[in-house]
Amino acid sequence: MRFELITLGTGAALPAQGRSPSAQVLCLEESLYLIDCGEGTQERLRMAGLSFMRIGHVFISHLHGDHYFGLMGLLSTMHLLGRTRELHLYGPPPLKAIIDLQLQASATWLRFPLHFHPVQDEAPMLLLEDEKLTVTSLPLRHRLPTTGFLFRQRPGPRRLRPERIAEIPHYQRASVKDGRDLVRDDGTTVPNAELTTDPAPPAAYAYCSDTAPRADLASWIRGVDLLYHEATFTQHLAARARETMHSTAAQAAALAREAGVGALLLGHFSSRYKDLTPLLAEASAVFANVALSQEGHRYPVARPEGEKFGRD
Amino acid sequence: MRFELITLGTGAALPAQGRSPSAQVLCLEESLYLIDCGEGTQERLRMAGLSFMRIGHVFISHLHGDHYFGLMGLLSTMHLLGRTRELHLYGPPPLKAIIDLQLQASATWLRFPLHFHPVQDEAPMLLLEDEKLTVTSLPLRHRLPTTGFLFRQRPGPRRLRPERIAEIPHYQRASVKDGRDLVRDDGTTVPNAELTTDPAPPAAYAYCSDTAPRADLASWIRGVDLLYHEATFTQHLAARARETMHSTAAQAAALAREAGVGALLLGHFSSRYKDLTPLLAEASAVFANVALSQEGHRYPVARPEGEKFGRD
Repeated sequence: MRFELITLGTGAALPAQGRSPSAQVLCLEESLYLIDCGEGTQERLRMAGLSFMRIGHVFISHLHGDHYFGLMGLLSTMHLLGRTRELHLYGPPPLKAIIDLQLQASATWLRFPLHFHPVQDEAPMLLLEDEKLTVTSLPLRHRLPTTGFLFRQRPGPRRLRPERIAEIPHYQRASVKDGRDLVRDDGTTVPNAELTTDPAPPAAYAYCSDTAPRADLASWIRGVDLLYHEATFTQHLAARARETMHSTAAQAAALAREAGVGALLLGHFSSRYKDLTPLLAEASAVFANVALSQEGHRYPVARPEGEKFGRD
Repeated sequence: MRFELITLGTGAALPAQGRSPSAQVLCLEESLYLIDCGEGTQERLRMAGLSFMRIGHVFISHLHGDHYFGLMGLLSTMHLLGRTRELHLYGPPPLKAIIDLQLQASATWLRFPLHFHPVQDEAPMLLLEDEKLTVTSLPLRHRLPTTGFLFRQRPGPRRLRPERIAEIPHYQRASVKDGRDLVRDDGTTVPNAELTTDPAPPAAYAYCSDTAPRADLASWIRGVDLLYHEATFTQHLAARARETMHSTAAQAAALAREAGVGALLLGHFSSRYKDLTPLLAEASAVFANVALSQEGHRYPVARPEGEKFGRD
């Protein structure tokens, strides 16, 4: 099962150092979930070879321009490419009027249904539940109303014990995988637990940008396989981070450690850092399994037990 | 005197073939005038080595996204870079609300004065007159209210005849260049025409995108040194051009010929043309001094008499 993250933009508000503004794509089998959409995202989707048509859901964390100025261009291109498939958009309530005003100004009636879902919760709320995953909002702490997003795979079927498969008739296997006991032709039953083991634990990805440290965040993202967290500054600029309601690399790593996540991916780097190794070094000292996100790179959400994160 | 055009984007609505959406910079000495601002313009300004701070005026032709979706990002970056110098923005009236709504959504109060000048004239109107040039609107014919822009240098001072310079006291030279007669110490006068010749004819640049052919356009741009005109299609797709209110390369060339311009630059190429030579060939058959605009290329507005346009 393919479940991976592609980071399209790793920069902060001011474009510099060749970094693009925030945008990521979460790929689960053939479905793409776009997370934030800074200016130029459509171009980087194209560079990454990702089909716009496979994007069914777009999540916007907040309305600072580096997180959404590419959205109108993407919607416009989807329209011009003849999209008819519906698109679900999740974001702060004012985003709806911003889109409508610009569509109206260009006398554009989108050929596809655009369903807008306002996100403005004080506590995590279920935003989406489809056959593959659930998405929950993660209220963050920033200068504007901001939410992260927690993507959690739906649990798979129970796994048949290989040594017992032969005794389960084909027509009953789906039922046993669903957790039901096996009923034999003679009327006797075999308890499900004798025939199956627990399914693979569903993998989870948490996206946290932009935010100052927030006490309740760790409990919401406990044990996720992959955490993306902004790391705009190093600890040398902790005061600046506090003032702008951002996080340092060390703060991001402290959250990863506290929440017991599998791996931490840093991003949203201030344009002042031409060399990012100080950010990585600072985070590594607190939480070992950490990497810097890079434009266009792919990161598996879940990895085999014990496999180290980092190099792709 | 440096007076040149830099084309940053040559594509039409659908981004493809590596072409960027519409954006140009007109450079007159140290001043930059930005014309249209498709998504990613700020990145291409940076690639062209052009300082955002030298842009004093921005002109938006109409509100199709490929002509303005890069504007918010540019304004935001100017703000983050600490700009305090005022910026003048010319465009269709609804642009004001589009900008205000997005500034409000991000709780941004620009550090620099942004003066918005609505453009919605039925006939050419003077938009700007500064010490270097005048800018006049050129009403076009498109699916949305659209204007082109005519940039005309202010006439320079009269030129002193080299053989007469010696007899003009230094302190009277500015006055003679301004067209006044020379008054000698003994009270006699020398007519200005004996001492000077006409100044270099002021150069002019006309920007016409997007538009179907319009009968009165030729009279408004007569004799300009450089005409940029959209050429979205070839004549094979004349019906499609009519339907979408665009022009073919042949129609752009016919206008250049009728208006007696010095040189014609084509752009706004449909994404269906991977190879642009058919567009160039079609236009060349009608008007010889024509070139295809290319991303990041520079084109002098005025050239020495008889010099051929084209290769840069």
